[in-house]
Amino acid sequence: MKPIRNTFALLAITLAGLIPTQAQDPLPSWNDSAPKKAIVAFVEKVTKEGSPDFVRPAERIATFDNDGTLWCEQPMPVQLFFALDRVKALAPQHPEWKTKEPFASLLKGDLKTALAGGDHALLELVMATHTGMTTTEFERIVKDWLATAKHPKFKKPFIDCVYQPMIELLAYLRANGFKTFIVSGGGIEFMRPWAEKAYGIPPEQVVGSSIKTKFEMRDGKPVLVRLPELNFIDDKSGKPVGINQHIGRRPIAAFGNSDGDREMLEYTQGGIGARFMLLVLHDDAAREYAYGPAKGLPDTKLGAFTPALYEQTKKDGWTVVSMKDDWKQVFAFEK
Amino acid sequence: MKPIRNTFALLAITLAGLIPTQAQDPLPSWNDSAPKKAIVAFVEKVTKEGSPDFVRPAERIATFDNDGTLWCEQPMPVQLFFALDRVKALAPQHPEWKTKEPFASLLKGDLKTALAGGDHALLELVMATHTGMTTTEFERIVKDWLATAKHPKFKKPFIDCVYQPMIELLAYLRANGFKTFIVSGGGIEFMRPWAEKAYGIPPEQVVGSSIKTKFEMRDGKPVLVRLPELNFIDDKSGKPVGINQHIGRRPIAAFGNSDGDREMLEYTQGGIGARFMLLVLHDDAAREYAYGPAKGLPDTKLGAFTPALYEQTKKDGWTVVSMKDDWKQVFAFEK
Repeated sequence: MKPIRNTFALLAITLAGLIPTQAQDPLPSWNDSAPKKAIVAFVEKVTKEGSPDFVRPAERIATFDNDGTLWCEQPMPVQLFFALDRVKALAPQHPEWKTKEPFASLLKGDLKTALAGGDHALLELVMATHTGMTTTEFERIVKDWLATAKHPKFKKPFIDCVYQPMIELLAYLRANGFKTFIVSGGGIEFMRPWAEKAYGIPPEQVVGSSIKTKFEMRDGKPVLVRLPELNFIDDKSGKPVGINQHIGRRPIAAFGNSDGDREMLEYTQGGIGARFMLLVLHDDAAREYAYGPAKGLPDTKLGAFTPALYEQTKKDGWTVVSMKDDWKQVFAFEK
Repeated sequence: MKPIRNTFALLAITLAGLIPTQAQDPLPSWNDSAPKKAIVAFVEKVTKEGSPDFVRPAERIATFDNDGTLWCEQPMPVQLFFALDRVKALAPQHPEWKTKEPFASLLKGDLKTALAGGDHALLELVMATHTGMTTTEFERIVKDWLATAKHPKFKKPFIDCVYQPMIELLAYLRANGFKTFIVSGGGIEFMRPWAEKAYGIPPEQVVGSSIKTKFEMRDGKPVLVRLPELNFIDDKSGKPVGINQHIGRRPIAAFGNSDGDREMLEYTQGGIGARFMLLVLHDDAAREYAYGPAKGLPDTKLGAFTPALYEQTKKDGWTVVSMKDDWKQVFAFEK
């Protein structure tokens, strides 16, 4: 009897799938303002067979920046919190860090002095904390850290500081035959261990910055060792390059929040047929953070939505989401 | 009435999918010999829920070498035929090639002298014929060439010189929830324009060797320009690196035909749980080509199945397919 019962269960699920679900709102955390209307109009026209804007499912590629677009990037990117905690954990094995920058300042809790060295200091920090181990070991380190580390403002695990409206948007696009990709300046191997759980995005659909790895046998076991050498920076004009390298198709929809996403949106817009480009504006100091400097919001070095980028959204018809006005809810934990 | 009719049509399709189809042979071009039995046994155990070897669909990653594994690589790889035809087509714009190697010999039809320069000559040839244009232009060049170019022995379009048993295997794996990837030493942008049509493998599931590209605006249009600079060689120990970079998961099944695939198969085997590794041995001079030098077959520099690799298949329990004995049919056009 069991196979037959299973067959009926499958049938019931299938039938449920056939019942029109338009009555249900696929984007309940979005207010009924212009951005939501623009998203729904775009999805409906590219999925309607016979429409001049119809796009076959294989070409429904949507790319999302991560930091500031899918999850909170303030007061600094989560990967930087991770790197700082790694410095503390590794310090006993590195007595030389007591006098060597940027480590010395970091260990004294002086982040500002530590990062005064700019990109060079940041690179040194990443190499010291992200390399030397196998890819499997690094995945375990990231997972273990995320299991306990919390956001300083929200007092919640970082993995809970993902934007509920974007989670709904990802699911809505996938339900309409889109393949959703992350295209982030963050480390590809830092995002993969949790992107599937947090966003429903599998490792093979994560594009990011990377270091080089090397295949070798360790104790007779084939492993990949993470080397202290940059491989690719997936930011700004690197984003279209990363998209082409990894996906091999031009996206028809792209989502970002900063100057680092400009070229990704331009590249998306440059294709033939219907396109959708969206930027998230962080103007909600109460529920999240407010920063720009577009629209007179405070300037932060990280994740800048510049006035020039804001002008470009108007010229090119890109959608701008005001977190304050267009999102009913920012985080799932608000409820 | 139409929506209801559509619903019934969908239901009928769904019901058809629920009827066990084991009566139908998913691999009709394979003889009922050991390799086919090993493939079916592996697929059945990893897809059987409750089995100790069960693998959830998201982790059913299968990687395939291309040249000599999915399509014919003799008398030389198809991409080399492409490069030679490009030299001829571009020669009028390059009068200096008349006296410059490897071009001078190539234009005289002397392939042996041209390629005597080894990797350096090959690299020069690739850079001269594969770079300088946008990615979109290159895709068009590849498609146009494939539409007319034919294999010298079979007198068929190269795209028809794909192995029918492997096409069936790809479809069989996908029908069982596997995601199929190409992982080839060949150029990623050379394979993507036709891999979807030939193998059902979309561009984002093609991993290969690559050159660098650069994002720029040309006549106000955002494009990627192909630069004469190597980015990545996806061969030998580069294959596990490419797999990790692109897929981010260790495959549970890997398929190749030469020494260039050894590390990919080792990396696949090194994971936890059920694994399947297979190599194609070209021992069918009548229907295709016979080369090794494993098992005393003639040695060719390209696509070598070495005696040492053959020993490793026995030691590690990898499956070896004899094209002569295990494949009922090699090409679809044989019928």
